[in-house]
Amino acid sequence: MEEKPLILVTNDDGITAPGIKSLIDAVQEFGELMIVAPDKPQSGMGHAITVNEPLFLTESAYHSNHKAYTTTGTPVDCVKLALHVLQGRKPDLIVSGINHGSNASTNVLYSGTMSAAIEGCLDEIPAIGFSLMDFAHDADFSGAEVAVRKIVGEALKNNLPKDVCLNVNVPKIDAAEIKGYRICRQARAFWADGFEERITPLGKKYYWLTGEFENYDKGEDTDLWALQNGYVSIVPTQFDMTAHQSIAEINSWNI
Amino acid sequence: MEEKPLILVTNDDGITAPGIKSLIDAVQEFGELMIVAPDKPQSGMGHAITVNEPLFLTESAYHSNHKAYTTTGTPVDCVKLALHVLQGRKPDLIVSGINHGSNASTNVLYSGTMSAAIEGCLDEIPAIGFSLMDFAHDADFSGAEVAVRKIVGEALKNNLPKDVCLNVNVPKIDAAEIKGYRICRQARAFWADGFEERITPLGKKYYWLTGEFENYDKGEDTDLWALQNGYVSIVPTQFDMTAHQSIAEINSWNI
Repeated sequence: MEEKPLILVTNDDGITAPGIKSLIDAVQEFGELMIVAPDKPQSGMGHAITVNEPLFLTESAYHSNHKAYTTTGTPVDCVKLALHVLQGRKPDLIVSGINHGSNASTNVLYSGTMSAAIEGCLDEIPAIGFSLMDFAHDADFSGAEVAVRKIVGEALKNNLPKDVCLNVNVPKIDAAEIKGYRICRQARAFWADGFEERITPLGKKYYWLTGEFENYDKGEDTDLWALQNGYVSIVPTQFDMTAHQSIAEINSWNI
Repeated sequence: MEEKPLILVTNDDGITAPGIKSLIDAVQEFGELMIVAPDKPQSGMGHAITVNEPLFLTESAYHSNHKAYTTTGTPVDCVKLALHVLQGRKPDLIVSGINHGSNASTNVLYSGTMSAAIEGCLDEIPAIGFSLMDFAHDADFSGAEVAVRKIVGEALKNNLPKDVCLNVNVPKIDAAEIKGYRICRQARAFWADGFEERITPLGKKYYWLTGEFENYDKGEDTDLWALQNGYVSIVPTQFDMTAHQSIAEINSWNI
């Protein structure tokens, strides 16, 4: 009998988040699951790893139909601990999410969800990050679950290109209203940051990060265009950050 | 009289690290400095931002010839706080480092030093991350300081390409032995991770991340080749992580 695919499930909102529950529900038909997720919210952790503190890895009673663990670390730590501490075969697929909130465009840089997928990609494991454009704790993940089943099914049938993982974002609309899927590039869009200043009871200033995400990209081939027009966006994502097109220009400098 | 360039200086090893002192010494001839650095080591923080805690920003007596501040946040938080809380004109250049340790190849993903530079790039500010291939606290930064002066001088004379920052790594050799500068691509190299298991006094297992960095890339146009051959490596680095070359292939999937 053929062995079922082993699917590693992680996220950045922590093991108790509704989004990872939806992801588990959607992917369990495709294989055997191993769940390794942070023990607390790790939003905005990007590709952070824990080097100045030790890590703890604990079996979890959450998602009791599956082998599940929590870690004290970041999403990338979760992937590293799953691959290098837990016994067993190499996962056939890593899925991360479903994130509560967008990881489209340059949010990929700040995203713990996507960094976990990229970490899998560094280890030559097919990997997909899923996000829903809704920050709410009680967000409706039913449309996202449909997208997860469709894309995971195809990813297991086809091979992901070498050194490429997927950044999937799902619009905040009813499942029935989703128009389909678009393979996109990352939009050129940025946070217009601000900070809200407050004062502690002892009189010291402190700051909360705030901001609006602004799209400067008029292209219709971007993830933001797809999402704004009712499509699930799929951005093939790589870890080579070289601006290859600029090597010649910098070479003309006098250095 | 023409206004001197404003240079924002940050790092990930914290404001007391010798590396940022060397960076300040090397760049102060080029302009007016504003220093905003973490109040503690933030190595391996990647592009993490602080969203679940408030941030504090405090004037610092370190580097007393310049305006200096510490923050409780990550390197990316430092850049955001510098740009959006501190009064004043927009910096003409952001320099980050000098990191104690390599940020070559895929280390760019884990690097707080480089993420600070990339954050500047997202704000359309020319930005350069500098790293020395020596983790030691008392590393010899004299060769790196020569590289900083050369590259910062050229970056202020020429314009960095749009949406591109620089990842500069300096080999651990005497300044006099450095052969020159190479404009490179990021090598395809990875951490072979491991974890060292230990037991707390109360009998609980915990883990420290360990590992060796392994180069799978035989190219002579990479940063690792340059560094191994006595050159300072300069990788033009972008924030577009789209694997453009894979869009057509994923489009052939049945989704």
